[in-house]
Amino acid sequence: MSFQIIDGGITAAKGFMATGAQAGIKYQNRNDMAMIYSETPCVAAATFTTNVVKAAPVKWDMKIVKESPVLHAVVVNAGIANACTSKEGMDTCEQTAKVAAELLNIPYDSVAIGSTGVIGMQLPMDKITSGINQMVKTLGVSKEDGLLAAKSIMTTDTISKEAAVTFEIGGKTVTLGAMCKGSGMIHPNMCTMLGYLTTDAVISKELLQKALSENVEDTFNMISVDGDTSTNDTLLIMANGLAGNPIIDQENEDYEIFKEALNYVNTTLAKMMAGDGEGATTMIEVKVLNAQTKDQAKKLSKSVIASSLVKAAIFGRDSNWGRILCALGYSGVQFDPEQMDLYYQNENQTLKIYSAGLATGYDEKIAVDILSSKQVTIVVDLLTGTESATAWGCDLTYDYVKINADYRS
Amino acid sequence: MSFQIIDGGITAAKGFMATGAQAGIKYQNRNDMAMIYSETPCVAAATFTTNVVKAAPVKWDMKIVKESPVLHAVVVNAGIANACTSKEGMDTCEQTAKVAAELLNIPYDSVAIGSTGVIGMQLPMDKITSGINQMVKTLGVSKEDGLLAAKSIMTTDTISKEAAVTFEIGGKTVTLGAMCKGSGMIHPNMCTMLGYLTTDAVISKELLQKALSENVEDTFNMISVDGDTSTNDTLLIMANGLAGNPIIDQENEDYEIFKEALNYVNTTLAKMMAGDGEGATTMIEVKVLNAQTKDQAKKLSKSVIASSLVKAAIFGRDSNWGRILCALGYSGVQFDPEQMDLYYQNENQTLKIYSAGLATGYDEKIAVDILSSKQVTIVVDLLTGTESATAWGCDLTYDYVKINADYRS
Repeated sequence: MSFQIIDGGITAAKGFMATGAQAGIKYQNRNDMAMIYSETPCVAAATFTTNVVKAAPVKWDMKIVKESPVLHAVVVNAGIANACTSKEGMDTCEQTAKVAAELLNIPYDSVAIGSTGVIGMQLPMDKITSGINQMVKTLGVSKEDGLLAAKSIMTTDTISKEAAVTFEIGGKTVTLGAMCKGSGMIHPNMCTMLGYLTTDAVISKELLQKALSENVEDTFNMISVDGDTSTNDTLLIMANGLAGNPIIDQENEDYEIFKEALNYVNTTLAKMMAGDGEGATTMIEVKVLNAQTKDQAKKLSKSVIASSLVKAAIFGRDSNWGRILCALGYSGVQFDPEQMDLYYQNENQTLKIYSAGLATGYDEKIAVDILSSKQVTIVVDLLTGTESATAWGCDLTYDYVKINADYRS
Repeated sequence: MSFQIIDGGITAAKGFMATGAQAGIKYQNRNDMAMIYSETPCVAAATFTTNVVKAAPVKWDMKIVKESPVLHAVVVNAGIANACTSKEGMDTCEQTAKVAAELLNIPYDSVAIGSTGVIGMQLPMDKITSGINQMVKTLGVSKEDGLLAAKSIMTTDTISKEAAVTFEIGGKTVTLGAMCKGSGMIHPNMCTMLGYLTTDAVISKELLQKALSENVEDTFNMISVDGDTSTNDTLLIMANGLAGNPIIDQENEDYEIFKEALNYVNTTLAKMMAGDGEGATTMIEVKVLNAQTKDQAKKLSKSVIASSLVKAAIFGRDSNWGRILCALGYSGVQFDPEQMDLYYQNENQTLKIYSAGLATGYDEKIAVDILSSKQVTIVVDLLTGTESATAWGCDLTYDYVKINADYRS
């Protein structure tokens, strides 16, 4: 491990500030807007939802990240997604960027925008403007500003989600911090949430994008809460270069160190999102080992993590392993169900459940004990190759239904 | 309409008998076995689960339907699925067929077998044998025998599912009857349940299989309860020829009449299964109209019907139509979300919700009123082509979670 885990999130790296505000857009008596600001201009990279129905801020950010020379700030709101809002929604993005740009004295095309919440409603521009005004005044005031921002973008999330690491490149200490939100409408297809990463690394835009795009495939794209890919998914990374390391513009050892740090931060946040899935009581991890291809391992692990029946069984602490076999079977991948092993695992023990086509005669009490853990790992060993993949999700509970049956009201 | 709807199910057609028995395999104090028997040998056709993990009775039936010259009887049990049971499970199928064959005085390879229930447990052969003995004695005794059989194969189903029609071919009255079960582990991919059809039509095996395989694509493959494709799905049709019609062995007008009757019976049963999805309070129908291709219409309608968030919103009678747009968007199909119309519909009224990229400003009270119906139709008009498709499902409720969190116990 060539990095160190540190406290802090989006403001851990040099030169990054963040804050939050109560704009009263939908939620009352809590923060519902956040701002990230870098003292110096950043190179940026991002990945976005694959949903054909893209929210206005996604379209805005896609353009900014592609066409603008630098990124300087991000404005995020929770409560209304600004999706399915047609031209008025796009106008709101442009006005939001212009209001922030004028107060921060930066170009308006260096301001990215994120929105999360109900689809189909227009954002109230007066409240957004008021929120931005409050936030510009409080930027950099508090030491806890990263946490403040992370809390401000939550919707049905029950915990705020942050991670940060430092590592050495060319004798310089480089920091990478991040925050994200996500709890429902989460499914492995692109990055399925709002996520922001900040780093003081000096790195080319090309490699920043490459590292992010590749890593998302093994992290945020491997989680599922409910099989629904949001209209607003955005994962954005900003690099302001204040660490002063030799520029990373080739796929050399420095790039590998950066990628390792990025993988840790993204994996940590992805697992936090899976464990905080709407209504979840247990985080589920599905490891597929010794598959013939990586693609096979990924499809199998995703199929199990997305199965409503597996998720409901784990909520009931019911060792109904047939549902795991069933979900493997309809994944679209060929394999031999009579030549594989299945295990349950928690941090204390591993139990073999199924082997060579039959139940092992395992102790039901131990199985229930493992399934009652806060984190349950299902291990599928295909015994045929050397490739593996891991997917993360959560159980399906009464509270998932409750949260989603009256989310709008 | 070239057919007439009649009462009755699996025993409506000439020469078919059915019955049920309490074998005590898993359920107590209710029937858990059923038998279908034809006085004369039948040609048969079937479609089976696409799941790689296939239950032993599925493997048995695949062989029987393909290789045996005739089919004479079907033995079904509820409670244990005989899936993931390896060689012992296959032996149970063979023994079951042999016990029934000897008592009925028919070849053992003319006996099909169906099982539904928990995966991973072996069937108790002594109880199966006792059940078959009881059933052979009661075959044909009761006028209500079709209903008795339909009730005997239920698991988490809350209603028994039957349908029957008659039609004329070459001056002869032909009858087609059916029963099925299915409530959970239901998703559009092949026939997602146990379903049996009986007809006294004279028809070639080739056309019987062709009609069934094609029709399943528009009926049973268009329903979803939970996105899980079972290991045991079987849809089997038996034709004993007792109607004495001129043989249907060409794709002529007679074949079209038969297909129309088959489509009615299968659509009726598919909708009954969707409406009786585990924990369901509302049957949801998604119609996609005016798409460019049939495939596009099918994928879009299936994506909406399978969305947990859409299903939970309808349970909450919440007009959260953004989730419908979202599910259309991640279907994998390209379309223009700014050039389509969205409606809610029940048997009394139609309400336009979204058009040209924006909400229509519809009356929320009317929307809630429609969403509170026992059957809700979501109409997506793509305004671009002439193809359409319909999918059926149900809402996601607390009871779905409850049923599946403690199904085994």
